[in-house]
Amino acid sequence: MKKNTAELAQSQMKPETTIIAIPNNGKGRVRYDKKAESEFFVDNSALAGFTGERILYMAVRELIENSLDSCETNHILPNISLSLKLLDPENEMWLVSCQDNGIGIPSDKVPVAVCSFLTSGKYVEKQQRGLFGVGLKMIAAFSTKDTDHPLKVWTKTQEDGSEYYFELRTDIGTNRPIVLLKRIIKTGESRIQDECGFRIEAVLRARLSPITKNKIYEYISQTSIVNPYAILTFETDEGKVVFERRTEIMPHPAKEVLPHPGDMDLKTLKKAIIRFMNQKTTLQGVLCNSFQKLSSEKAKEIITKAGVDLKIADKYDEHELIKVVNICKQTKFQAPNTEHLSPIGEEILIAGMTSEYTIVTNKENTNSGDQPQQQLSTKVLRPVLTGYSSRTCVVNNRPTIVECGIAYGGDISSFKLHRFANKIPLLYDEGSDVAREVVSEVEINKMGISKKEVKEQFANPDSKSDRAVELLPIHIFFHICSTKIPYKTAGKESIASEGDLKRYMKACLA
Amino acid sequence: MKKNTAELAQSQMKPETTIIAIPNNGKGRVRYDKKAESEFFVDNSALAGFTGERILYMAVRELIENSLDSCETNHILPNISLSLKLLDPENEMWLVSCQDNGIGIPSDKVPVAVCSFLTSGKYVEKQQRGLFGVGLKMIAAFSTKDTDHPLKVWTKTQEDGSEYYFELRTDIGTNRPIVLLKRIIKTGESRIQDECGFRIEAVLRARLSPITKNKIYEYISQTSIVNPYAILTFETDEGKVVFERRTEIMPHPAKEVLPHPGDMDLKTLKKAIIRFMNQKTTLQGVLCNSFQKLSSEKAKEIITKAGVDLKIADKYDEHELIKVVNICKQTKFQAPNTEHLSPIGEEILIAGMTSEYTIVTNKENTNSGDQPQQQLSTKVLRPVLTGYSSRTCVVNNRPTIVECGIAYGGDISSFKLHRFANKIPLLYDEGSDVAREVVSEVEINKMGISKKEVKEQFANPDSKSDRAVELLPIHIFFHICSTKIPYKTAGKESIASEGDLKRYMKACLA
Repeated sequence: MKKNTAELAQSQMKPETTIIAIPNNGKGRVRYDKKAESEFFVDNSALAGFTGERILYMAVRELIENSLDSCETNHILPNISLSLKLLDPENEMWLVSCQDNGIGIPSDKVPVAVCSFLTSGKYVEKQQRGLFGVGLKMIAAFSTKDTDHPLKVWTKTQEDGSEYYFELRTDIGTNRPIVLLKRIIKTGESRIQDECGFRIEAVLRARLSPITKNKIYEYISQTSIVNPYAILTFETDEGKVVFERRTEIMPHPAKEVLPHPGDMDLKTLKKAIIRFMNQKTTLQGVLCNSFQKLSSEKAKEIITKAGVDLKIADKYDEHELIKVVNICKQTKFQAPNTEHLSPIGEEILIAGMTSEYTIVTNKENTNSGDQPQQQLSTKVLRPVLTGYSSRTCVVNNRPTIVECGIAYGGDISSFKLHRFANKIPLLYDEGSDVAREVVSEVEINKMGISKKEVKEQFANPDSKSDRAVELLPIHIFFHICSTKIPYKTAGKESIASEGDLKRYMKACLA
Repeated sequence: MKKNTAELAQSQMKPETTIIAIPNNGKGRVRYDKKAESEFFVDNSALAGFTGERILYMAVRELIENSLDSCETNHILPNISLSLKLLDPENEMWLVSCQDNGIGIPSDKVPVAVCSFLTSGKYVEKQQRGLFGVGLKMIAAFSTKDTDHPLKVWTKTQEDGSEYYFELRTDIGTNRPIVLLKRIIKTGESRIQDECGFRIEAVLRARLSPITKNKIYEYISQTSIVNPYAILTFETDEGKVVFERRTEIMPHPAKEVLPHPGDMDLKTLKKAIIRFMNQKTTLQGVLCNSFQKLSSEKAKEIITKAGVDLKIADKYDEHELIKVVNICKQTKFQAPNTEHLSPIGEEILIAGMTSEYTIVTNKENTNSGDQPQQQLSTKVLRPVLTGYSSRTCVVNNRPTIVECGIAYGGDISSFKLHRFANKIPLLYDEGSDVAREVVSEVEINKMGISKKEVKEQFANPDSKSDRAVELLPIHIFFHICSTKIPYKTAGKESIASEGDLKRYMKACLA
């Protein structure tokens, strides 16, 4: 392998993609450069959440989310093992690994799917955890820039049946994968026992603060709560903890849906037309086959209203097409289908609000020299009242379900806001999330909590401060599921107040 | 032009870049797609701040920031005219234009500099407002996807002297510019009167809510406060308002600085080596010429400590180079230079905290049929006490200056947090900004406000709530300047709590 990376070092030493080579001499000349996608995200890693102490947290969550998506794509009950171990304390090197029984990645796609930014199997309109095609690539790029260890990948798909092993690095300057090694695993050396699956090992340079460690435990606990059909195993140098499967009932796999015509723009319309290129399909045919809630009659009506001729779809120019888009923007359509969305449901959601997990390390086993064992201790809180409500709605023409739960009083002693999106917990950046705005703007008595109850708990109930609710002993729980969550960052930690989302969230709470 | 766009529609109808063409039939197959940079940012426009009601706000700020950077690059006193007018109420089309007397863009670079994402003149290590190479491209892409109007651009540089006119669109599927028209402007038709400059006109589809309109006014007012050497003219359908130049003294142009060795990783080290490719330079020579605070002796010491041979720089493999990186991470270097940074300073900062701008539309002129005139009314607040402090520090090996001001009591009646970064105001997403965390975590009496003063203003001073400070009549002002601001999103609205930034901000306030 030493030889391989020596060659790689040479091959990577291409000159930068420089469009113009005027040196910036500080006298007002500007040099225009093009950055590869990989270089852009590495240089601006905060955009993907990979900053300082969050690196290991982000790595863990991106790997778990990929694994859950991969299992659910083919309705496989997930069994996911994650491990985080200190490899080299002096240089703060950590070995992160994750193995699942999901559908795997076809061997010919592994290098780009793991290393090339903006290449993804997630660019489809359906409810899933992944969205950007950035997370796994950040792990690969950070491992490449901070260590000399290759990424190790094992993959096995049902179609192929063979288990493949890869050693990979990212060429950060060009966004291309570097394949150091690829081979078929012989029987006996197999790492994937199931019919299909995926395993990855990456070395990352990072600091693990106690705060980050707690966030990782909290992330896995909360993920387990809202995905009760998954087995999640998490191993660290302190021991191993298993979140068991609590049900075998799994939601149906999410399906890809057609875009809604209310969300049409020139780009989506042209993309639809390209799919019917050279097929002599009329614009009417393209419209009703490419968008939901658009019958053939409705399509014809729109074209007529737009005042453009009826002809083969690829014969229209932009000036004609924009008229069709404008009419669609002005037309009322039926709301999009929501039957493919998968909410959490009242039972699981209330369980989540009232459970407190603690991880206890069993010291006795440590003394006997064995692998230390950790145990989960679950405390179930008993609030005075709980409530659940949900709204099915349309946000930016995307089908969206908002679920909200509250648990109040009893042995709940302080305020806590739980946020979930497509069944993943959001733990950072609460301050910029739409849920925080909703909580600040809703009045206490609208939440079904009586003035008297509030007085019992709250010294100064007449305060006009919009923060008053945060002084109450209340847990508030929001889950948003959608074919496209409007995240504010590629790190997927906070949700933007898009369209009517906030109004529906308020309606749930008040 | 009609003919041009018809051809363009054809040329854009290339099939998508699809890596594998398995149709997603919902039975567990996944289709891997590659997105162009332009398509990625258009599909995930929230990442760049271009969402719903913020579109026009973002367009205005990206244009002003580009103009200010362009002027300051060559130490030109900025004169910037911005206009925002409703073009087509039925389809919510707005004409946004911006003209400056900055250095302009060389005519051969205009198409990529305006349309191609991740192509920028800002990818250098110096204090400037722009950072990502995304903002202007978002305007071009949104104009392309939502309208059939081309982007119109006028540019004139000192080197060339001719004024060029362009009509541009973005090919969103490939991230390439489409040049519909390019010509040299004849004398008499000139739009740029100065020696150099840049003018852009874009049509955008967007809603302008009263809230957004106020944010735009606030953005321009605050930008004027901290850039008193600029003339800013802002014209809307309601009239024209001019923020006059209040000083001719301008900070020196920011200079590009070498990276600090404490921030070295394999990527930065290899990039440095590539610059000396085939020049038979030793690693020692590369190190001391490519990083600041690294003398020739220090470089030799590091190579020796790393235990690698002394040889020509491009003969090292990754396993050897990582050892050099590891030693650099463990070595203490002098703090980076900060003399190239440009803080706001006490006088301007206090003026900013205590000024309230109101824009008054003069109704009389409207009646006479002329262009309505608007007037600026400035109210200067008289607080009981004001304070200013600053810290020069190093955050993630980047030279950083934190400035903080407070104004308390008097005719200041409520809490307000002002945030600035490299002399641009940050108006959204306060909740996720490091400044909000700092304010929440600092105790009132540490801010130099006595218990007695607090009692006079604040009913419940014994409250332990971390929100207590927000109930005080106080304006707090933070400015962070750095060669690289750790923004959380490409929309540049909130700053991450990177490295020791928070500690230094607290030290300023407490």
